Amino acid sequence: MKPGKNLPSAITIFGAKGDLTRRKLIPALYNLFTDHHLPPVFTICCVDFLEEDEEVFKQDLLAGVNEFSRNGKADEAVWNEFASCITYLQGDFMKEDTYKRLRKKLDTFDKENKKNSVRIFYFAVAPRFIEVIADALHVNTMCGRDQQDRIVVEKPFGTDLETAKKLNRFLTKRFAEKQIYRIDHYLGKEAVQNIMAFRFANYVFEPLWNRKYIDHIQISVAEEVGVGKRGGYYDSSGALRDMVQNHLLQLLCIIAMERPGFYQSELIRDAKVKVLKHIRPFTQQQVFKNVIRGQYTAGNVQGGRRVAYRKEEQVQPASNTETFVAARLFIDNDRWKGVPFYLRTGKSMPVQSSVITIQFKDSPHKIFKDDLTPNRLVISIQPELEISLLFESKVPGLKMKLKPVEMDFTYQEAYTETIPEAYEALLLDVLEGNPTLFMRADQVEAAWKVVMPILDAWKKYPSKELHLYKAGTWGPSTATELLKPYAKDWFRLSARGESIK
Amino acid sequence: MKPGKNLPSAITIFGAKGDLTRRKLIPALYNLFTDHHLPPVFTICCVDFLEEDEEVFKQDLLAGVNEFSRNGKADEAVWNEFASCITYLQGDFMKEDTYKRLRKKLDTFDKENKKNSVRIFYFAVAPRFIEVIADALHVNTMCGRDQQDRIVVEKPFGTDLETAKKLNRFLTKRFAEKQIYRIDHYLGKEAVQNIMAFRFANYVFEPLWNRKYIDHIQISVAEEVGVGKRGGYYDSSGALRDMVQNHLLQLLCIIAMERPGFYQSELIRDAKVKVLKHIRPFTQQQVFKNVIRGQYTAGNVQGGRRVAYRKEEQVQPASNTETFVAARLFIDNDRWKGVPFYLRTGKSMPVQSSVITIQFKDSPHKIFKDDLTPNRLVISIQPELEISLLFESKVPGLKMKLKPVEMDFTYQEAYTETIPEAYEALLLDVLEGNPTLFMRADQVEAAWKVVMPILDAWKKYPSKELHLYKAGTWGPSTATELLKPYAKDWFRLSARGESIK
Repeated sequence: MKPGKNLPSAITIFGAKGDLTRRKLIPALYNLFTDHHLPPVFTICCVDFLEEDEEVFKQDLLAGVNEFSRNGKADEAVWNEFASCITYLQGDFMKEDTYKRLRKKLDTFDKENKKNSVRIFYFAVAPRFIEVIADALHVNTMCGRDQQDRIVVEKPFGTDLETAKKLNRFLTKRFAEKQIYRIDHYLGKEAVQNIMAFRFANYVFEPLWNRKYIDHIQISVAEEVGVGKRGGYYDSSGALRDMVQNHLLQLLCIIAMERPGFYQSELIRDAKVKVLKHIRPFTQQQVFKNVIRGQYTAGNVQGGRRVAYRKEEQVQPASNTETFVAARLFIDNDRWKGVPFYLRTGKSMPVQSSVITIQFKDSPHKIFKDDLTPNRLVISIQPELEISLLFESKVPGLKMKLKPVEMDFTYQEAYTETIPEAYEALLLDVLEGNPTLFMRADQVEAAWKVVMPILDAWKKYPSKELHLYKAGTWGPSTATELLKPYAKDWFRLSARGESIK
Repeated sequence: MKPGKNLPSAITIFGAKGDLTRRKLIPALYNLFTDHHLPPVFTICCVDFLEEDEEVFKQDLLAGVNEFSRNGKADEAVWNEFASCITYLQGDFMKEDTYKRLRKKLDTFDKENKKNSVRIFYFAVAPRFIEVIADALHVNTMCGRDQQDRIVVEKPFGTDLETAKKLNRFLTKRFAEKQIYRIDHYLGKEAVQNIMAFRFANYVFEPLWNRKYIDHIQISVAEEVGVGKRGGYYDSSGALRDMVQNHLLQLLCIIAMERPGFYQSELIRDAKVKVLKHIRPFTQQQVFKNVIRGQYTAGNVQGGRRVAYRKEEQVQPASNTETFVAARLFIDNDRWKGVPFYLRTGKSMPVQSSVITIQFKDSPHKIFKDDLTPNRLVISIQPELEISLLFESKVPGLKMKLKPVEMDFTYQEAYTETIPEAYEALLLDVLEGNPTLFMRADQVEAAWKVVMPILDAWKKYPSKELHLYKAGTWGPSTATELLKPYAKDWFRLSARGESIK
């Protein structure tokens, strides 16, 4: 039995004045509190560099909850009860004194409760602080019990395979692997979690889920936003590091993984790593044939004007950083040999839309002459949460004429409750010590290994085949060429059959 | 090329004053006319025994259209144009003079149009008239051209295997098999026709459609009505002859048949006959174990009082005729060996509902402990037209909990048009010479062969295990016992997941 369920919990957030804390972490913790998922006794210790009046700080957190929580405005009494457990600790991450005061605070909390609390240290900080903070926690022996002290690290987890390995080595010298929760919030999304249930609790899909019946798979994560205020970070990162190495490859793992013997975190993560290891590595020549990069120019997105990427704040005027990636990958194993997996992500696209499409093969022999559209399973992750199956059906009428229609399941119709945010699910998992949805060291490294040939080729030829596309479009047309002969275009259908183009 | 498409057509209806003509045939022909499916030149010659003023007769047909057409009230101008092609011919089916006058009429129609019309003779008459009329058509050489003269025969087609064979012999001596359209209106239903498209134009279902993945199949046709004014006929027939031998076995054929090489009438009918021939025949002992018969007693149906079957008009006070049948059949071939097919039909049930349920097998190994409900495909034929797939899905929330949900396709949401009546589709097929949805002689005989052991056993033990059930219930409880251990109860779910119990 893992400790955690009813133990007092001390949650420390480094980077408490940052966007993530205000928009995601505190609203998620507040919702966990209102839904009675937090332990009876807890403290949230918010650490940041800025001098701040604690009451003013809490008022700002409340404003964040009111603005970003899925449940809308907070209840005053509930908030006050929750907020009474929040403290603000002003401190420089680089100074040892900060950690001494933090440790004292946490020890006092434990003494008051006469119990050793579960300790969570959330690194909501810029990458350059990760090692500093980790080391300080270690040196100050604040996070040494592998059963109940945990750190949570946000992406980017390294900037390439070498830095990721280095960071893993650094952390695993100081903490047990089981204490390290590398977060990929995509894995906490309700519709993403449901893919596991869909695949492994429904026996009818398993016989179809292989090269014999599947023609190709598309995984598309389109963002409407540009780089916004993240230009500085983004320009040194790009879409491949920011989206493909983590979110898209993780979605691919969930779609492609073998059925684990049990629903157990290590077995699941083993199965995911195996997928990454079976992805066929690119030679440098193959990179430019199989991976399309793009960068947006000025255009209109949802009626608003968007400047060219190179004109965005903190972006280099001659930047070659990609804001769009489309890639064709193959997984060399019995299940998937020969089935292309198409991945696509981009910024400044017409709409926000994350959709996975399983395109089934066509029948080898047709008995109806207008049987033209092979079956297609569409898993929509956002903005709609839907699963739909495209199938041929007789058009009502006096003749046997066929037309594809859709059988669909939508969360909106099935449930009245709002869907928990990814961060709620993930934070609760951290509190309870369940690492299933977090990235193990070998997962992160295997994912970097997949993208390294691409990073290397692009580094060698910084401007080669960087395709410009107008903001508000679906990216460069070469990304559509990539699909041939498997598909004419990227599927953008919602489960309702409406094109969201 | 079959003649018929643009040739003048002469449609003769024997039994023009009957219910079928008024409720089904004329509304169907009128809708075909309004939708421009009838040939440019046609005549509808209505024959019946009663003296009748032609105008009064047509007014009564119009009232029938207004009451029973899916499109509601007829347009006056369109009706007048349609009605101008209708004539009434008073005549006794037993007298030769009737046919002489009819022949003269049809010959005149052909002369006027300077073309040999397609001739359809619809037998909307009591069974005792079939041979009489068929012989008269033959003797008077009115229906001799096998390319364009056709007869349409309504059920019951015989009362057992012997009488069906005798009738087939009688008819095939006078007409070519291809001229004989034995109608089973269930096969014309939109949702039933769609089963063929669903099974054979969607490659994803074929791998699942066999004993490896299917646990059992339920085919249930529940009628809310009692015997009404058909007590005289029904009491000598019963549910087995009236429903199972035709409608239910035909549904079973469509669900169980092998994929034909082409969508071609003879191949399809061959495949259906094959299913019937592979149904495991019952010994007399097996009949009482595998077939449950029931008869309704007084009760309430949809808020109205229903008298006991034995008190219905024209029913024998000590009648042992069954108004309910549930049967367990096995098909002994590679695809279906060991998979039970459960058939159920009854009168005076709580609601009208025709549903086919494909219950898939459970996974041999589960990775989620609350993965309790195996997949289920529900094809609803009436009153709703729907297809739905029951599957396990994660319940939105912070834990991996599963609950079955449904992915569904409903005609109501997919189409705005009203759905054609079965009789429209079937009449057009007759006009165009397409026999796909009609029963070939060998189909009828093979279906009788399936039910003969049951009829024989019941004849031998007229009152043995005749289970009484209250009108307004789902039949005797032994019919539910029959499902064990495959199911706890008959599925009565609509595609929306609501029980319609």
